[in-house]
Amino acid sequence: MSQDKSYPDWFAVDWGTSNLRVWAMTASGTVLDQAVSDQGMGKLTRDRFEPALLDLIGDWLGPNKTPVIACGMVGARQGWVEAPYQTTPCKPFVNQLTAVNFLQDPRLQVYVIPGVCQKDPADVMRGEETQIAGFLSLNKNWDGVICLPGTHTKWVQISADEIISFKTFLTGELFDLLTHHSVLRHSIDTDGWDDDAFQTAVSEAISRPEAIAARLFSIRADDLLHDRAPSQACAYLSGLLIGAELAASRPYWLGQQIAIIGGSTIAKHYADALQAQGAFATVTDAPRMTLAGLSAAYAKTKETA
Amino acid sequence: MSQDKSYPDWFAVDWGTSNLRVWAMTASGTVLDQAVSDQGMGKLTRDRFEPALLDLIGDWLGPNKTPVIACGMVGARQGWVEAPYQTTPCKPFVNQLTAVNFLQDPRLQVYVIPGVCQKDPADVMRGEETQIAGFLSLNKNWDGVICLPGTHTKWVQISADEIISFKTFLTGELFDLLTHHSVLRHSIDTDGWDDDAFQTAVSEAISRPEAIAARLFSIRADDLLHDRAPSQACAYLSGLLIGAELAASRPYWLGQQIAIIGGSTIAKHYADALQAQGAFATVTDAPRMTLAGLSAAYAKTKETA
Repeated sequence: MSQDKSYPDWFAVDWGTSNLRVWAMTASGTVLDQAVSDQGMGKLTRDRFEPALLDLIGDWLGPNKTPVIACGMVGARQGWVEAPYQTTPCKPFVNQLTAVNFLQDPRLQVYVIPGVCQKDPADVMRGEETQIAGFLSLNKNWDGVICLPGTHTKWVQISADEIISFKTFLTGELFDLLTHHSVLRHSIDTDGWDDDAFQTAVSEAISRPEAIAARLFSIRADDLLHDRAPSQACAYLSGLLIGAELAASRPYWLGQQIAIIGGSTIAKHYADALQAQGAFATVTDAPRMTLAGLSAAYAKTKETA
Repeated sequence: MSQDKSYPDWFAVDWGTSNLRVWAMTASGTVLDQAVSDQGMGKLTRDRFEPALLDLIGDWLGPNKTPVIACGMVGARQGWVEAPYQTTPCKPFVNQLTAVNFLQDPRLQVYVIPGVCQKDPADVMRGEETQIAGFLSLNKNWDGVICLPGTHTKWVQISADEIISFKTFLTGELFDLLTHHSVLRHSIDTDGWDDDAFQTAVSEAISRPEAIAARLFSIRADDLLHDRAPSQACAYLSGLLIGAELAASRPYWLGQQIAIIGGSTIAKHYADALQAQGAFATVTDAPRMTLAGLSAAYAKTKETA
């Protein structure tokens, strides 16, 4: 950040299970600086959240009380403060933020964005609602389906600026467990990739999704008997899991306008898999949508102030 | 073991990835004693197999050379000695054992039973072929399908005493990973059980197997939103995974005579799940089948001697 005395007007904070990311912002939405640490919610007891935040933004804080808008698992029951879920159907764009009212540092004013839940079938999100709000703030009157790939991938149906319904898949977590902790770890090189192996697996899994547990073991057997390349195996596994997910989420995406909000690599894999099914998706950048959503929430606090 | 001078005629050894189990045997098949240790193949370098075996049987060895018949991962490429796979279709009942020819102790004579592989679709087994041989030695002229539930569950088609084809599912390993290493670990008590939750999940997974990655996350969401009991969640998860496996293995078991070789708890779960589908299975005890198979292999060595 520059050394003059223009302090940030507010801080945007994305506080997930594994990481903490902050942006120092002006009121008009300019990013003055940003920082990241590994002090995710999963590592912190309640009294360690404020020190973890101050580690990153302490040097940037001006003398006055500065708003901090945070989204993600920081608002879970085991987080800094529980920000109760909104229930679908609802706007992702939050009407009510939860304030942290037990702060030590008088310069901080912290608000946490609530997650969204669906009662039946039971489902929950925390963090994705902010990305969705960001996307909708940049794409007015957009109806369709948003896919947010990640550890727990979400498919979200949007209509009239509301989250109508959503469904979470454990796909990313299964991929991590299988590549690092299962017998398949001997047969998979996670640095490798092979588009053909990926598309073959997507197609196999979409046509026979029930066979997936058997196909998983075949990755190991193919390595033992046929020396399949470990890089090919990585793409094949990813394709199996994403293909099975596309088979189950078909009612969400078939014939719909689709947007993907995710990291560039995984978002491309989803877009490629969908394209092979004749479905075309717009790909957008996850951190940018998070920041847009946090900015929209900040603007909301100014309206109501 | 008794203190008289009747030494064992041979040793039966089940040497898997995690554990080593030995039985001291008479030529006529009586068990004189047994022992188990955690010195599985996964923990041993090549030079540590002989000491690990002697730790268990050293005190029982007589002065003469004594045969040791071993099955399981001890015969893998990373094991004590590689016992090359037989290829389907083949009798599980081994014609050719692989001798360990670099033993230090002159009282040992060690033979390893080969695994079985299938070229297309690629698949492998090591250890199960011995249980199958044991089952067939006790059930002459038995045709049908054998299910061997475990970390890597096998479905094996048997005809005219031969393994015709088989298919491996990662079901048990997925259950362990999900209950101990995924986000679901917060919502699952692995000591609990609930038959209704199990059967509900089996039925859901059989009718819509592609939805499994979404149903997995619903276990977490149900806990957060509806306080589902963690013991119920355990049975529900098991039912989902076994149900998806039954959907994919249906061509194996539908209309067939079925035998299950497995630990008593998991074998009962499979039998219950199959019964709800109108399929009735004979349940047999895995260690007893292993010992019967090792005994059959020992008898074979006497024939050819």
